[in-house]
Amino acid sequence: MLRTRTEYLTFHTKERMAIVNITAQIVDIVRKSGVRDGACLINAMHTTSSVLVSDDENGLRADLLKFLELIHAQDRSGRAGRTGVLDPHHDNMDAHLLHHVFGRDVLVAVTDYRLDLGPWEQVYYGEFDGMRPKRVLVKAFGV
Amino acid sequence: MLRTRTEYLTFHTKERMAIVNITAQIVDIVRKSGVRDGACLINAMHTTSSVLVSDDENGLRADLLKFLELIHAQDRSGRAGRTGVLDPHHDNMDAHLLHHVFGRDVLVAVTDYRLDLGPWEQVYYGEFDGMRPKRVLVKAFGV
Amino acid sequence: MLRTRTEYLTFHTKERMAIVNITAQIVDIVRKSGVRDGACLINAMHTTSSVLVSDDENGLRADLLKFLELIHAQDRSGRAGRTGVLDPHHDNMDAHLLHHVFGRDVLVAVTDYRLDLGPWEQVYYGEFDGMRPKRVLVKAFGV
Repeated sequence: MLRTRTEYLTFHTKERMAIVNITAQIVDIVRKSGVRDGACLINAMHTTSSVLVSDDENGLRADLLKFLELIHAQDRSGRAGRTGVLDPHHDNMDAHLLHHVFGRDVLVAVTDYRLDLGPWEQVYYGEFDGMRPKRVLVKAFGV
Repeated sequence: MLRTRTEYLTFHTKERMAIVNITAQIVDIVRKSGVRDGACLINAMHTTSSVLVSDDENGLRADLLKFLELIHAQDRSGRAGRTGVLDPHHDNMDAHLLHHVFGRDVLVAVTDYRLDLGPWEQVYYGEFDGMRPKRVLVKAFGV
Repeated sequence: MLRTRTEYLTFHTKERMAIVNITAQIVDIVRKSGVRDGACLINAMHTTSSVLVSDDENGLRADLLKFLELIHAQDRSGRAGRTGVLDPHHDNMDAHLLHHVFGRDVLVAVTDYRLDLGPWEQVYYGEFDGMRPKRVLVKAFGV
């Protein structure tokens, strides 16, 4: 018999963009699922946020901001004095693009009742257009 | 007992690049699978196309075209009067790159017999080198 | 009853960046799993490497190097004579970024006891900060 457990997490960040470590919450849901061997799907339910795996919260935040700045700088290059097509005050296209670059979902193996992550892997919620409640789906399944 | 249902969808777009909303077809396959609780894998079977989740077809198309234009513009910057390495008339490298940026596969949860998407999430086939028949695999599994 | 098989592959590349075709190893694990219908999760266990699906090893390597060169060139544009924020001698931020662009995990369907890949799809390990042992998790599951 396949065991499953589904939960929905809600995030409401104060900043427009934020990276939140949600590993402890995923570990807890997997523990409650009773799954010994299987996998856990974690996905953003909005198209302007991501679920991603990276290793260090501060480093990741810095990477993300530098990457975004880089994209915006490139967008504006050759458009001296003009607004780039990706500027967030224009619309939230930058958030949609980051959703695709950083990804919608991750699937993490569950082995011997635990989330089978590498030694530095942590699960993050990536918010790219926040300041409002947004949801993440978590579904553990297996035997 | 695990239920599974596997179908292959074929797309033959008139344009080289196109974004096609395939949500209704996925909903139909999940309904036919009889899966109550589980997940549905949807993946491109070609390395120059993607399956992705985004929220609005027209907005997504515009995003994609602007993003591609941006990548090409950056590629040519500093190469005044020369062809950029990513130009599609050179080869289809741009299509391969977009495959990686937009992703090969998505896994969507199935809960209470329905595709468990967020309110604005829609499933799209992203064609980056079309005008020929290409396939997408859909496999629903669960109890 | 759900069948599962979990293996860990270790890679130690001589170059800092490398793309390794691991399809034969995944095919072998799926065969040993005895799974007839289900899926196989393949994921990097490090946040500076990827598992990805592409079609041609040499072309993929060339794509990757050109893409990286492009990112670095853009990073330095407007910074005449200065070091870009992405330079690898500064830190391994380029490897983290590539991990996000190329993705952490892929899920490949298993149908009729075989890996259900498209005709040109091959599974690759993408190493972006190697010259040390790093692991990939492979878990086949299904009936």
